[in-house]
Amino acid sequence: MKIDVCLSPHEVSEEKLKDHIVVVVDVLRASTTICAALAAGAKEIIPAESIEEAIRLASNLSRDAILLCGEREGKLIEGFNLANSPLEYKPKIVKGKTLIFGSTNGTPTIVKTRLATRTLLAGFVNLPTIVGALAEVKIPIIILCSGKLGQFALEDAVCAGNIVHALRQSAGINYELTDGAGAALLLYRHFQDSILQMIKESDHGRYLASIGMQHDLPVCAEINRIPVLPVYHDGKIRVQKDKPGR
Amino acid sequence: MKIDVCLSPHEVSEEKLKDHIVVVVDVLRASTTICAALAAGAKEIIPAESIEEAIRLASNLSRDAILLCGEREGKLIEGFNLANSPLEYKPKIVKGKTLIFGSTNGTPTIVKTRLATRTLLAGFVNLPTIVGALAEVKIPIIILCSGKLGQFALEDAVCAGNIVHALRQSAGINYELTDGAGAALLLYRHFQDSILQMIKESDHGRYLASIGMQHDLPVCAEINRIPVLPVYHDGKIRVQKDKPGR
Repeated sequence: MKIDVCLSPHEVSEEKLKDHIVVVVDVLRASTTICAALAAGAKEIIPAESIEEAIRLASNLSRDAILLCGEREGKLIEGFNLANSPLEYKPKIVKGKTLIFGSTNGTPTIVKTRLATRTLLAGFVNLPTIVGALAEVKIPIIILCSGKLGQFALEDAVCAGNIVHALRQSAGINYELTDGAGAALLLYRHFQDSILQMIKESDHGRYLASIGMQHDLPVCAEINRIPVLPVYHDGKIRVQKDKPGR
Repeated sequence: MKIDVCLSPHEVSEEKLKDHIVVVVDVLRASTTICAALAAGAKEIIPAESIEEAIRLASNLSRDAILLCGEREGKLIEGFNLANSPLEYKPKIVKGKTLIFGSTNGTPTIVKTRLATRTLLAGFVNLPTIVGALAEVKIPIIILCSGKLGQFALEDAVCAGNIVHALRQSAGINYELTDGAGAALLLYRHFQDSILQMIKESDHGRYLASIGMQHDLPVCAEINRIPVLPVYHDGKIRVQKDKPGR
């Protein structure tokens, strides 16, 4: 079976994601924050392909039932309830709520996968849960790195490589790796003992630290901190408990 | 000074290439073939952003003065004079000629850099020549990997990493590397003693072998085989003898 890793989101068209299980990786920070929100009891998350679209979606709904969440340049947007730090998403704030979420890199990439058979959202925080779900999958897998403003982001590639590594170890299947999957695996092997340091020194990690978000980095680097399985299907992200493949 | 490596061509917009020296890498095979053509005495090469555009450009010119060159799916196109194997470009065929060149990955990427200050074309075959030219450059450098059908191609990333490695060694400048440049450097270090084997096992290398083009692979892998400096400027690729930077 084939595993492809797209190291940046524009490498692949929406059409090519059809009939695949897609794993969207956005370590800094949408994947991590969405895991935190679901673990804190959010009912569902509606990802928007832009911040403007998030505002439009929210304007059609009662503001009592929803929270408007996301970031622009890593920061809270005026009029939004929450930004994109996983530390903000506490049960007393999000439990039972529908979250509309617009971010710079992660949510446009998630929405791009709407034609996929199923989309899983992965970061280091839920990596073993993702690998457990993928080991059951019988159709080709594409891991889609969200990157940063359309460009390669090291932390997403390393996370994708970690998924490939763990899947090869656990599933007992002889996966065929594309160039992108092989490169991600090599990058993971290089950084496997220094994930937090790699994140701190990455372009995006240094940017987040420069705007005061350095406390998010250890959260985003911690493997298995938030063992949930977020699945995007029919426009919504929810926690999935059964098998995602078919 | 900053060096960025875009691991696939859609990572960057045309606008972002302004005020940069851009190095387009297409190891398999446009960069290599263009080096071979210029070393064999071709007067100039006009890269087309598509095969259709190459045909249109050729239709406006006398067929005595030009050769129509390129490939579709790696193969000769009906009505074209030459395909995209560096072994075809011999002095008795190309000397003094203008070549119109349309390929799947390389020439659209070259044309995309039209707003750049200057574009250099690099493969393993002219890598030391490229590094020598870049060591003189005083403005930011973007190395743009052509990839394969918009996706990451390992051989281009490794070649880009080799350029970064050699430039750091030779120029004595403390370059600032982006995530993409750092990843390319790591991939180069992994494969530095097995460039030909890496190319043979890459997605594109295996495809070319499957269509009978395996003899091109050792040519494309040979460092310093064709020490020319192809520069794309004002729509044409020519050998440059003076310094490309400013």
